[in-house]
Amino acid sequence: MKLLEEKILKSGEIKEGNIVKVDSFLNHRLDVEFLDMMGKEIYEHFKEKGINKILTIEASGIALAVITAKYFGNIPVVFAKKAKSANIADEVYSSKIESFTYKKNYTVTVSKQFLDSRDHLLVLDDFLAEGNALRGLIDVAEQAGAEVCGLTVGIEKGFQKGGDQIRANGYDLLSLAIIDKITDGVITFR
Amino acid sequence: MKLLEEKILKSGEIKEGNIVKVDSFLNHRLDVEFLDMMGKEIYEHFKEKGINKILTIEASGIALAVITAKYFGNIPVVFAKKAKSANIADEVYSSKIESFTYKKNYTVTVSKQFLDSRDHLLVLDDFLAEGNALRGLIDVAEQAGAEVCGLTVGIEKGFQKGGDQIRANGYDLLSLAIIDKITDGVITFR
Repeated sequence: MKLLEEKILKSGEIKEGNIVKVDSFLNHRLDVEFLDMMGKEIYEHFKEKGINKILTIEASGIALAVITAKYFGNIPVVFAKKAKSANIADEVYSSKIESFTYKKNYTVTVSKQFLDSRDHLLVLDDFLAEGNALRGLIDVAEQAGAEVCGLTVGIEKGFQKGGDQIRANGYDLLSLAIIDKITDGVITFR
Repeated sequence: MKLLEEKILKSGEIKEGNIVKVDSFLNHRLDVEFLDMMGKEIYEHFKEKGINKILTIEASGIALAVITAKYFGNIPVVFAKKAKSANIADEVYSSKIESFTYKKNYTVTVSKQFLDSRDHLLVLDDFLAEGNALRGLIDVAEQAGAEVCGLTVGIEKGFQKGGDQIRANGYDLLSLAIIDKITDGVITFR
């Protein structure tokens, strides 16, 4: 998505460890008009897939998920919750996740009430680096017997291996922008 | 909002300590179509107030904030982040909050980049009980010199004192449903 690449170049900040900060429109301040264009692009790609629910993860995935859901005719969104404790109740699906950005582990949980074998899911997140969050969400979907019809993220860091691994596993993964390289603060897109 | 009262009666669960759980449409699974109706109601109430930004708090406020922002012509949303540490950087506004639901304290932070004296804010959250989260957001807005034009929540627990205190302070607070009493699992609305 050309517009997103331009937005990243204009508004993104590169922090230590090649972390790309897009707090001005995606992760802290939400540019609702821009998110709407991203949601439309996601809808255009997946509209024939029979998707009836979006699965995302708190907190930064929620805004894009909700806006995208509007394009799919107001389908429901379920956001996985992050728990620190391994002390997870019976009534949830859960999966352990390692976070690249924060260098710590956490567990995602989804209530069994809200995910089941009738679900045809679009799995959505803001960022994709090592792919741990998306793999956690796929794991949770599989436990529920739900079908993962596709995955989408705003920004993929293509120089980490997450996205390519997920594609190699046969999933239809749409990344609206893929950063292939960051050298001396200069971003190159795929 | 009559429809929300009906939805709470139909889908809400009452947990120990009079906690009303609305995970099926507001806090875990998001009923995007219903949130849209809530957003429209909020817009109708505040549309003449010159609001140019919505300030909310992660994670459960984000969905309703984004949908409401669409009615206001796609104005930006800023969501305050929750931090456990008191070790807060210079570049953020911060305020300490006591959580009624979780019985623990945390600090909300908003980057100084994203809030300033040109902002005419609608402060939004999903729930209001003691009012601590809203007061924290008001505090942050005041530090930034922003104007709080109004406040809104989905569900107010009117038997706790938060909402009435905020109204007594002169703020225009719209709660889409106010629970006045929960007796033996039966909810009475104001």
